[in-house]
Formats: sequence, C-alpha cells, structure tokens
Amino acid sequence: MRAVDIIMDKREGKELSRSAIEFLIGGYAAGTIPDYQAAAWAMAVFFQGMTPAETAVLTETMLKSGEMLDLSGIPGPFVDKHSTGGVGDKTSLMLAPIVASLGIKDPMMSGRALGHTGGTLDKLESIPGYRTNLTVSEFRAVLAETGYAMTGQTKEIVPADRLLYALRDVTATVESIPLITASILSKKAAEGAEALVLDVKYGSGAFMKDPAKAEALARSLADTGTAMGKRIAAILTDMNEPLGGKVGNFLEVEESFDCLEGKGPPDLMEVTLALGAWMTVLGGKAKDTAEGRRLCEEALAGGKPRQLFLDNIRLQGGDPARFLEMRGNYRSAHEATVKAARNGFISRIDAWSIGRAGVTLGVGRNRTTDAVSPTAGVEFLKKSGRPVAKGEIIMNVWAKDEESLAAALPQLENAVAYAETPPAPRTLILKELIQT
Amino acid sequence: MRAVDIIMDKREGKELSRSAIEFLIGGYAAGTIPDYQAAAWAMAVFFQGMTPAETAVLTETMLKSGEMLDLSGIPGPFVDKHSTGGVGDKTSLMLAPIVASLGIKDPMMSGRALGHTGGTLDKLESIPGYRTNLTVSEFRAVLAETGYAMTGQTKEIVPADRLLYALRDVTATVESIPLITASILSKKAAEGAEALVLDVKYGSGAFMKDPAKAEALARSLADTGTAMGKRIAAILTDMNEPLGGKVGNFLEVEESFDCLEGKGPPDLMEVTLALGAWMTVLGGKAKDTAEGRRLCEEALAGGKPRQLFLDNIRLQGGDPARFLEMRGNYRSAHEATVKAARNGFISRIDAWSIGRAGVTLGVGRNRTTDAVSPTAGVEFLKKSGRPVAKGEIIMNVWAKDEESLAAALPQLENAVAYAETPPAPRTLILKELIQT
Repeated sequence: MRAVDIIMDKREGKELSRSAIEFLIGGYAAGTIPDYQAAAWAMAVFFQGMTPAETAVLTETMLKSGEMLDLSGIPGPFVDKHSTGGVGDKTSLMLAPIVASLGIKDPMMSGRALGHTGGTLDKLESIPGYRTNLTVSEFRAVLAETGYAMTGQTKEIVPADRLLYALRDVTATVESIPLITASILSKKAAEGAEALVLDVKYGSGAFMKDPAKAEALARSLADTGTAMGKRIAAILTDMNEPLGGKVGNFLEVEESFDCLEGKGPPDLMEVTLALGAWMTVLGGKAKDTAEGRRLCEEALAGGKPRQLFLDNIRLQGGDPARFLEMRGNYRSAHEATVKAARNGFISRIDAWSIGRAGVTLGVGRNRTTDAVSPTAGVEFLKKSGRPVAKGEIIMNVWAKDEESLAAALPQLENAVAYAETPPAPRTLILKELIQT
Repeated sequence: MRAVDIIMDKREGKELSRSAIEFLIGGYAAGTIPDYQAAAWAMAVFFQGMTPAETAVLTETMLKSGEMLDLSGIPGPFVDKHSTGGVGDKTSLMLAPIVASLGIKDPMMSGRALGHTGGTLDKLESIPGYRTNLTVSEFRAVLAETGYAMTGQTKEIVPADRLLYALRDVTATVESIPLITASILSKKAAEGAEALVLDVKYGSGAFMKDPAKAEALARSLADTGTAMGKRIAAILTDMNEPLGGKVGNFLEVEESFDCLEGKGPPDLMEVTLALGAWMTVLGGKAKDTAEGRRLCEEALAGGKPRQLFLDNIRLQGGDPARFLEMRGNYRSAHEATVKAARNGFISRIDAWSIGRAGVTLGVGRNRTTDAVSPTAGVEFLKKSGRPVAKGEIIMNVWAKDEESLAAALPQLENAVAYAETPPAPRTLILKELIQT
C-alpha cells in the first residue's frame, strides 16, 4: 500500500477502504506518513468529501491513535455536549452542573480560544487557581464527586487529532465536514461520552456561515456518531450575534453563574435550556424535551447546579468564596465604553466582528501559543432589537492594555448596525435534528 | 501575507496575484514555505486550475528560482523539442543532430525514466563513457561544436521545479495541467530555447490518456510559452503503442542511429519528421512544414546527422568506434522471446503494459533512486496490424536478471491483443496546434 495511491483515489472521488484510512491516518499519527501527504489528502477530502462509512472509519482510526479516558467503576449515564464554537458561547459552563444535578455525568474535555472563537478552558482558567490539566485519577475523582469534571485534551487522547488539526489549520483544510466530524467525535468518544448533544452553530461568528452547510455538518456528526453507537442529538443555533450579554474569560464565567442564579439573559437561557433538555432526554432522565426542559428549570430553581458549580471550582483548585467576591469587579483597569452612534434601534451586533475585537482586547488568540487575559472583554448593555439614543452607552469594554483598547474600539463600533425601525426578532434555534 | 490565505484563495477558485505566487512558490524554493503547505496548494490547483496569467507567473517564478544556462556568444537560433513522455519515444536522440545539421542549435536538457516512461539521459548513459552531467562550459563547447548538447538538469537550474516535482510525485498532484505546464516551460526557458516544439502524447502510455486532456495541456503549453515570448508549436501524437521497434536504453540509442542511417521504422520516422519539420520552421530555416520536412529528409540522406551523432558521443565522453561495434550485440544475457498466442492479426500492443514490463526488466524505474540496466529491453518483430501465426516470435526480450525476466514475460504477453481481421490503421499525429 502506498500513500500516494490513497491520495489519488480520494482525489478521484473514490471511497477509501478501512485499511487505506488506517494506513494513511494511523500512519500519520504514528509518524510513518509525512505531513505533506496528509496535507494533500486533506485537501482532496475537502473537494471530494467522504462517505458516512469513511467518516466513521476515520473517526475510529483517530480514536485508536491514543487512549480512552478510563471511567470504569463510575456509574453513568455519561452525556456531553459539544459546540462548534462561537462568540460568548458559555453554555457548557452551565449545562454540566445542571445535568449533573439530575444524575447525569458529564466528563467534559474542552478546548481553547482560537481565532474569533472563545474556549472553555481559557474561561475556566480565569478563576484563580482553577486547574484544567487534571490527571486521569483527579478527573475521575472530580467527576465522581460533583457529576462533572472539566479538563483539557491530554497528549494521550487522540494524538492524531492534535496533529491533523494543527496541519489543517495551516493548509486551509479546516472547513471540511468529514474532517470536522472526525475531529469532534474522536475526542468525545475518547472522553467516554455515551450520548452527545451537538450545538452546531451557523452565522457570521460560526465556522459555518451558511445554515445549509451547518445542517450538513450536523447530519454528518449525527450519522457518524450514531454509526459509532452513540446516542446523538444535533441542534442548529444562530451565531450571527454574540450569545448572552458578556464576552470575555472571567466575564463569561460570571455570566454563567448569573444564569445558575436565575439571572441569565434570555437568549443564553433559551439555547442552554434547549441543549439541557436534550442532554436530559439522552441521559434517560426525561421522556421528551418538554419534560427535559422542565427538569432543567426545576433544577436551576432548586439551586443545586449553583452549588455543584462552586464545588467544582473547589475540587479543581479554585476558591469558591474568593470567586463570589470577584464577581462584578474582576476587570482590567484598561477600560472604555462604546456609545450609540445614532438614535434608533440596534439592528445587529455582528458576532464575527466582536470575536475579532475580542482577540484584540486579549480575550482570544490568533496563535495557539498566544496568552489570553482573564479580565479583558465586553459587556453589552443593549443588544439587537433594543432602542437606543445617540451617545447612550451600549458596551463596557476592558482590554489587556491601552494599545489594545484603542485598537479594539473602532472594531467594536463597526460591529454595531442601526435601523430606523425594530429589526425582525431573531430565531435562535433553527432546527433540531434528532438521530437517536 | 500568509501561505494559508493563499492556499484558501486557490481552494476557493480565486486567481492568485503575482505577489501571492512569488510568496508561496518562491518561498517554497527558498525554504521559507514548508512542503505541507506547497502540497495542499498543489492539490487545490489540481481541483481549481490556474488561469493562463497565473500559469505564466508560476512558470516565471520557478524559472527565477535558479539560474539560466549562459549561451551568450553562441549564435542561434536555439530550438528545442519536448515530449510529455512515452514508451519507446526516442525522437530527441535523432532530432537534435538532424536540426543541428540544418544550422539550428539544440541546447537539450533532458530527464530520466520514471514509472512506465523512458528517459533520454538513461538512454544516452547506456553508451559506455557518455556523460550527461556536463559543466556549463563543457555544455557550451559541445553545443558550439556539433550544434547540440545533451545534459541533465543541474542543481542550479529551476530548483523550484525539482522540489515541486518531487513533492507532486508523492502527493498525487502530478496530473495538473498548469503545474505540468510550468514544470516543462520553466526548464526549457532556463536552457535558453527561443522556440520549442512540443510533442504532447495521449493514450495508454502517456500521462494524459484522453486526447481532449492532452489537447488542453498542449494549449496551456502553447499559450504560456507564447506569453513568455517563445515561438511554440504543439503536436498531439498517439502513445497507445510503443513508438518504433525497440524499447530499452541501449536498444533505443541503437534504433535512433538506425533512423539516422535511413533504416528507421515508419511510425518512428513519421513522428520524428513531423517534429523536425516544425523545429526547422520555428528555427527560421523553412517557410512551412512541407519545406521543413524536405530539409530534414535531405539532411538524413546526406549523412551529416549521423556524423554529428558520432561526434557528439565523442565530445560527451563516449567512443564512437566502440559504439558502432556494440550495435546489435550489446544485450543482457538474460534473454527470452514472446511468441504469438494465436493465429490472426496483432490488434494492439499496449504502451502502458510494455512500459510497466520495461520497469520490471530494468529499462525504467519506480523510484528516482533505482538503477536502470543499459542492456535490458524489448525488440518488437511484429507490431499492430501485422498478421501472425501462433508460436511465431513477436518480441525478443532482455532483462537485468532471470527473476525480472520471469516476472516480465506474462506482462509482455498480456500487452498483446489479437483479432481475426486487420485492425484499422493508427493515426499517429492527431492534430498540430501552431501558436507562433
């Protein structure tokens, strides 16, 4: 078997055999296939796609390149959610304690901010002392005690994905549905999730701008996950505007905790509850999403998720009392405001532009090696649909330094569009694809 | 400027600017762009193509990656031919001395056998002592004295092409018309050719199986060459059956010399004279191809090309007297015959199968690092269209060793197809595209 023949077969649109995929991608992970052959293959996949069977084999091959988290001895059900990434998207921080309070275990492995999108690990690490590099035994202990644990991908978990993702990032082959599918599902399978709720985002702040492409990704994820024996639900949600009222690392932790205290903004709560309802159903705790949603709402009202959140901070190295004191005042000193440019209505706050401004402020990063600021970010006092008067403050802004602040302000101002009349209400949840 | 953005633009079908092509491919040649980005870009080019303007810039960028042969002080005109490669294709060996005898200089840089196709350098090196690694001053001296010189590509000549070709070979990106165009023309421009006759082959033994694709390549070569200020003619010729009666390294040198002595097989002479006629026209020695062909035929009849061929052997390190003695008997001792499997007519001898069998025998190579045998090869006693009786010898075969001989015989037998009735005559020259 020769790598060049496998690349040529894919280039010609043929379906690759299991042995061909294992030879090429297993070989790439093992170091026997060079990166230039993996890169040419990835570009051929971008153009020719993969069948559901090929995508499933690719996912399994990547999964087998490393180890699986050992959850033996911990009672399930194990249910996780995954978002394809966005701006202000902090639902994981709430969903884990909500479903944990309902008896569902969420063994969550997350990623970091990159480009305009935020990352769960960076948000959690804004809590002083909070550790996201748990050992397997630490992870197991936290998961067993609070029902959820939050950690980063270790070297041992799906090394093929780390290699292939880094390669795709520099070879313009990120935007391939089968490659995205295999990347997501191999990691989620490795962490031990039995069921998975997928939040597939579309719009300016999402990887997939176009709802039809997002739906194709959702179907690929659902089909492949199902083929791997997982229970899957996929939801298409809008990411044209940042989710919730805060974008930033500590700011988003804070807003998540607000939600757990019943003070969350409506758009964020709507998406969170839709996802939570499905996690509850897939975890076998509700017969349908209406019941699932009700259980999540009752859990929030009862206060247990809030307590689990604080317990989790403690178990992962933070100080819950200090966290509570930091709320509302852990902010960078480099601050400014963005004011309405005219009278009228805010017709849009563009998610992509806010995400890019976030990178400038220090919330996100352009390169995986860049540092992020815990205290930088944006708080929206008004979002789309709200009337504004010229000069009224619509955002509070914090930056890592004055230079970044100056650079970000015009980006933030340009992210806002105005109209004479109120815009049509946004549809946050476009479609629910149920696969199980 | 970032390589990943250039790759993405090409992936999305955009036309790349001169600065983008220079950044990526100039950078690849200079070592600042890694091979995985060049590989992903090449695959994107395979799918999206390049415009004539992009192809011209790519060719120039590759040309500029190295040095040009210094032909200053040597009077022209400098005319070369290039074949896209085939089986038994030895026309270069005859054309150079034929046109040199008419006052045209041919500064020929050639390549080696790879895959099923033969290589001019390997054929010439089958002459004991013959050197194809001339220094520039040696090349100039031989060219000035006999009107042609034969050498390999030096490290200094188009290093971008050597790098990119080696990468394309292992990443399934060889079969891209703009990349083939830039590879051929950058080398031919570097050797100093002012005019170029292109023998673009189609059929089983060619890189382009399909005549329409071969024509597209011919047009790309002609358009790009013309844009670079070269006089160009392109001819589409059939490569479904090996050209001439011999396939092998010394065997093909021998057959070329037979042609110069007026004893060449008709198919080989037809293609050679068609190409020679165009070289004569582009060199300004004939007003049209009819006159050019007549001049080539007169030159052959006068014997000067034969003498130039022997002079060239002497000047490039061989011994003409010894070469003349070796004719007809410089053969491997590992020999066998292929006999007709039935009565009837030979309807086809498949060029690709013969080329592959040639690799087995030791004529060609699978990897650039493999050695070839000077004395291996095949002599056809019958070709397509000829009547045969079962058991009649149709090929004499020589191999580098007994094991290769045993492996090649079934390949050779399977290359022959038979029919009850004579097949339709072959059209050797499908089309002539004149660009100048």
